[in-house]
Amino acid sequence: MTLTPGDPLLLTPGPLTTAAETRDAMMHDWGSRDQSFIDANATVRAALLKIANAEGSHVCVPLQGSGTFVVEATLGTLIPRDGKALILINGAYGTRMGKILDYAGRAYTIMETPEDTPPDPADVADALADGDITHVLVVHCETTSGILNPIEDISRVVAEAGRSLIIDAMSAFGAIELDASKVTFDAVMASSNKCLEGVPGMGFALIRESVLEGCKGNAHSLALDLYDQWKAMEGNGQWRFTPPTHVIFAFAKAIEQFEAEGGQPGRFARYSNNCKILVDGMAELGFRTLLPQGLQAPIIVTFHMPSDPAFDFQVFYDKVKDRGFVLYPGKLTVAPSFRVGCIGHLGADEMKAALKAMSEVLDEMGVKTGAPQAAE
Amino acid sequence: MTLTPGDPLLLTPGPLTTAAETRDAMMHDWGSRDQSFIDANATVRAALLKIANAEGSHVCVPLQGSGTFVVEATLGTLIPRDGKALILINGAYGTRMGKILDYAGRAYTIMETPEDTPPDPADVADALADGDITHVLVVHCETTSGILNPIEDISRVVAEAGRSLIIDAMSAFGAIELDASKVTFDAVMASSNKCLEGVPGMGFALIRESVLEGCKGNAHSLALDLYDQWKAMEGNGQWRFTPPTHVIFAFAKAIEQFEAEGGQPGRFARYSNNCKILVDGMAELGFRTLLPQGLQAPIIVTFHMPSDPAFDFQVFYDKVKDRGFVLYPGKLTVAPSFRVGCIGHLGADEMKAALKAMSEVLDEMGVKTGAPQAAE
Repeated sequence: MTLTPGDPLLLTPGPLTTAAETRDAMMHDWGSRDQSFIDANATVRAALLKIANAEGSHVCVPLQGSGTFVVEATLGTLIPRDGKALILINGAYGTRMGKILDYAGRAYTIMETPEDTPPDPADVADALADGDITHVLVVHCETTSGILNPIEDISRVVAEAGRSLIIDAMSAFGAIELDASKVTFDAVMASSNKCLEGVPGMGFALIRESVLEGCKGNAHSLALDLYDQWKAMEGNGQWRFTPPTHVIFAFAKAIEQFEAEGGQPGRFARYSNNCKILVDGMAELGFRTLLPQGLQAPIIVTFHMPSDPAFDFQVFYDKVKDRGFVLYPGKLTVAPSFRVGCIGHLGADEMKAALKAMSEVLDEMGVKTGAPQAAE
Repeated sequence: MTLTPGDPLLLTPGPLTTAAETRDAMMHDWGSRDQSFIDANATVRAALLKIANAEGSHVCVPLQGSGTFVVEATLGTLIPRDGKALILINGAYGTRMGKILDYAGRAYTIMETPEDTPPDPADVADALADGDITHVLVVHCETTSGILNPIEDISRVVAEAGRSLIIDAMSAFGAIELDASKVTFDAVMASSNKCLEGVPGMGFALIRESVLEGCKGNAHSLALDLYDQWKAMEGNGQWRFTPPTHVIFAFAKAIEQFEAEGGQPGRFARYSNNCKILVDGMAELGFRTLLPQGLQAPIIVTFHMPSDPAFDFQVFYDKVKDRGFVLYPGKLTVAPSFRVGCIGHLGADEMKAALKAMSEVLDEMGVKTGAPQAAE
């Protein structure tokens, strides 16, 4: 790992720790209408399609902003004004898609399961009896809890019902397999600063070209119109509006390293190992994960709050940060919890060092065990 | 000037050449919900308000994306669904505001003048006889031609008529004076990568707090809802959605240098000198500016295309780039032209070196003079 000495490591769902080489790529300035930038942009777009094995069928449309910007842009561009979405919700990011559709004025219905429960594909099939539903929206890995949703099975029932599937793969893309030949999707959205280990500032959508061709005039926003963004970029290779040039060159460098690591299987292997070290080590300290192993993606792990009265999360967080590791406060509604990420430019050594720091802090705080209430 | 050897200098309206110190600030990673980032964000927001002398009256709301994102966000958030805008257009950025309102479904009327002609405040006063008009939209410096619009006079007639003024100050903010005690505005929008010399990836709006308080529910987009962005940020100091952390730290560093240069007056002085060197030097080569001196902002200069048959802009552009200077192709409709920026981390030496390069290239191309058709 090429880390910058003295910088805290980010055990978060992103922005996360990046390689020094990735940040080094930002040490130059580029004209956004100049050929050097146009070439780098084309390289990144092609590489992203390849990761999802979607080169023949889909196009890659990048967008400035955070992941939510590209989620809103994709929903607004793909779902026509008279369309209706079914949103599968088991966390904050599913809920957010509903909020986006409220703004965009699109009809939708939801199918909600608890944050520790994936949607049942059979229930999705039943819900599609509603003939008005045109699009199904699902989150691949819900960062709220870290749960992995059964994308492949869901895609099958959606395809069988002849509807369009849109996947928010923000925190999974590049680490968890998503192969267009196995999962039928019309769009998948992700961002630069998750498992591809770039810096934050842009997102992208891989959209089925034949679908996007028909999306002119759908969007509710100029900045977020991915049809317009795509058509302009196909025309001259440029972004319509000033692109985050440094972020894109960093992303290009991050993708090079991703490919050198063996692409998605390589990254999955490293993150899985990080996750195992984290979960096993935390178990030794008494902590319990929210999710059973089969539902846990190797992205971010939710731990129940310890019941030991000597434990105070803010104190724990601050003291662990003083030792060089930034954790992530919880967002769950089902249980008091906090989260620790295992993605980013981190390996076994860094995960072990983080565990050592957490163990020392617990000792210092006088916390005997990380175990939650027995009732939970 | 702290330049990176070997990198071409950008004589463009942005992204532009930044100081090495600014890019150095991106060599670290930060958690977006961590106190270090929250503190940096607060510092940047306060500094931006101070530049416009708007600390008591306005609030600063930053947004991910390019300048257009924050323009769309501001218009969508401030203009209610039943509002009506008057757009003063004399270039591409005025036209773009109309396109944004088409998407957002807001009524508007336009007052258009040629690209080399500022709007007449008396005409604006006349147009405001239309009692339905609630907001007036104007571009401070139209990057299309580089023309400076008479903001102060316009603000007076808008205020007298009791309407709301929104200023797109994208390419002027920080270099051209904009003082809230002299110009009455409800919102001004700009971005990180223009005269404040940060890297691209975020914009910001300074919005009158009493106005923004009443804007709940106006926005047509979740990602672009500046009311929601503001309220969330006031609550916990954080961005609602993943911020471009590296871009923000670079911006903070760029603003430090801006302040060290003497703020807006200091920057204006350097850019004015850059502009004078450029215009005088180009005149020696025979080139003629589109705008008379009184209308020319020291931001970007439009030159008529030379009529010499040996001149070919793409060849000229490529050869000047080979010598280390990136120019900017024209966007004008009134005349065949190209543009050269004089903003960014560049001083007299760099402008003189650019002139020398252009002169050499003209010789090499066998162009005798940069003079346009006599008829123009």
